Amino acid sequence: MNAPFPAPIGQPSGSTSAREQHLASASRFRDRLIGAGVLLDMGVEGAYGRSEAFDAATEGVDRLFVALSAGDGAEAMRFPPGFPRTSLEKAGYPKNFPNLVGTIHCFCGDAAGHRRILSCLDAGEDWTDQQQTSDLAMTPAACYPVYGAVAARGPVPVDGKRVDVIGWCFRQEPSPDPARMRMFRMHEQVFIGGEEAAQDFRAQWLDRARDAAGRLQLPHAVDDANDPFFGRTGQLMAASQRERALKQELLIPVGSDASPTACASVNYHVDGFGKTWGLRLPDGAPAHTACVGFGLERWALALFRHHGLDQRAWPVGVRATLGLA
Amino acid sequence: MNAPFPAPIGQPSGSTSAREQHLASASRFRDRLIGAGVLLDMGVEGAYGRSEAFDAATEGVDRLFVALSAGDGAEAMRFPPGFPRTSLEKAGYPKNFPNLVGTIHCFCGDAAGHRRILSCLDAGEDWTDQQQTSDLAMTPAACYPVYGAVAARGPVPVDGKRVDVIGWCFRQEPSPDPARMRMFRMHEQVFIGGEEAAQDFRAQWLDRARDAAGRLQLPHAVDDANDPFFGRTGQLMAASQRERALKQELLIPVGSDASPTACASVNYHVDGFGKTWGLRLPDGAPAHTACVGFGLERWALALFRHHGLDQRAWPVGVRATLGLA
Repeated sequence: MNAPFPAPIGQPSGSTSAREQHLASASRFRDRLIGAGVLLDMGVEGAYGRSEAFDAATEGVDRLFVALSAGDGAEAMRFPPGFPRTSLEKAGYPKNFPNLVGTIHCFCGDAAGHRRILSCLDAGEDWTDQQQTSDLAMTPAACYPVYGAVAARGPVPVDGKRVDVIGWCFRQEPSPDPARMRMFRMHEQVFIGGEEAAQDFRAQWLDRARDAAGRLQLPHAVDDANDPFFGRTGQLMAASQRERALKQELLIPVGSDASPTACASVNYHVDGFGKTWGLRLPDGAPAHTACVGFGLERWALALFRHHGLDQRAWPVGVRATLGLA
Repeated sequence: MNAPFPAPIGQPSGSTSAREQHLASASRFRDRLIGAGVLLDMGVEGAYGRSEAFDAATEGVDRLFVALSAGDGAEAMRFPPGFPRTSLEKAGYPKNFPNLVGTIHCFCGDAAGHRRILSCLDAGEDWTDQQQTSDLAMTPAACYPVYGAVAARGPVPVDGKRVDVIGWCFRQEPSPDPARMRMFRMHEQVFIGGEEAAQDFRAQWLDRARDAAGRLQLPHAVDDANDPFFGRTGQLMAASQRERALKQELLIPVGSDASPTACASVNYHVDGFGKTWGLRLPDGAPAHTACVGFGLERWALALFRHHGLDQRAWPVGVRATLGLA
């Protein structure tokens, strides 16, 4: 758990000036990526189009994740970028991370409402005041829809069930740091089962994440971390999460050397998700759960940062690991 | 353009009773898919999880689309499931399809706003009244972000530029018909160039779409179609689109035999998008644009409908075309 890097941006120990220096450096990296055509500017912060080269990098990291998981017997599940708002609420997300939530809103009006939209559009005014909250919200982490889907099937074995899931995630945190996208893909493996097996899962994936970074020739370190819980109560929850060592991150410098980026995270929820979602072991006790997530865009950005903007010139071993022709 | 099938659901000629019969049949098909574990119920209409088998089918259709495009020299671009709301407005989407729009809303409040969310959640009341319209909207068709990205680079050649794009799309039309998802993936090829070449593109892709359906052993027909423009003015626009034959669909029975589903559509925008997005030919005239879209989930559903719920028992030729091991 020794980390040669300082705490990443957003962690309690980051000072304002360290944050500003990081953002300035990250913003310059973003401009270089856009200038070289690796990312496509969409005119808003944290949302980018992706070139063939960038897409090839994320696909390569994805293949590596699949290779690391080979033999795990994980069941693949795939979900769309939005999921039921009631599930977001059940997961406690608006309570813990209200500032990161994205809800999807829709128009339920008639011809008169439509005329109002048209006149607002014509006048260059906000036309969205008739939008109503729908039953869907943006998915904040790829694994969120998994727990309910598994719970619906009945108890899980003590030695555990593994689910492989990849999906688009949304978090409302606009930033000039290209590693802090608002829409990004996460490839995750979820473990649901007994306490001991859940802890083994965690140790196994920390090793695999280090192995991935090594094979991709990326400087890295593992450190304890916490989720960005909102507000003053949130600070207590974050401190407790760190104290109990429930979250570890694999950190790689992306936007700046001083504030490395979490490219993989391993999370142990003890039996909290088991209780929330009604996940049971055969004896009726709540299951323990854990998950690992690889942020595909962050790994891709790390590759461009450390091996250069010209993908063809990346080290032969790195290209081979990524399966690039 | 002869079509052995009646007009698809949602088209002007569909009577209420034909619509009800279609939905009853489609809903039974959905229940069979969920019962067999091909789709995963998410508890809301039009949003589903996907099993390994369903994912393999969409991946196979995607590979077929790529094979059909081989040699086209299309540049790949990828975009996230949301894009700038100003781009949605520029494309005229809230004007023409207000009922299908999804806007993404976020919380911009402080500790007091958070306390209000918490008390609403505790009381089981709506907590979303503080959500504010963000600068992002759900992308309604995969090609929407392409036009602005290409326009930013300057004029296109008369013989045209092709862009390959695949992405998640959102349309707010909850339905028990599994072929009418609210979140789905579309693989598209976009053409931007001269008038004649744009029309050639259209003819080429209608042939390719028919070829794809033939190789997948799916019953199919091509027919003129229109977009579901909103309201009374919308009916006039739809009629004009049909009269000018600007949209053709490849129809395959999915939810019912009587009302086949558009699994591919070929659209010619004349120079409308060229003018909107500032897409220019070398002589300064607005470029003509066209696009073809394959709805990956709809093709997958057609395969399960016609070849059975057990993917391993699909015809050998179909499995080979899809690249299934």
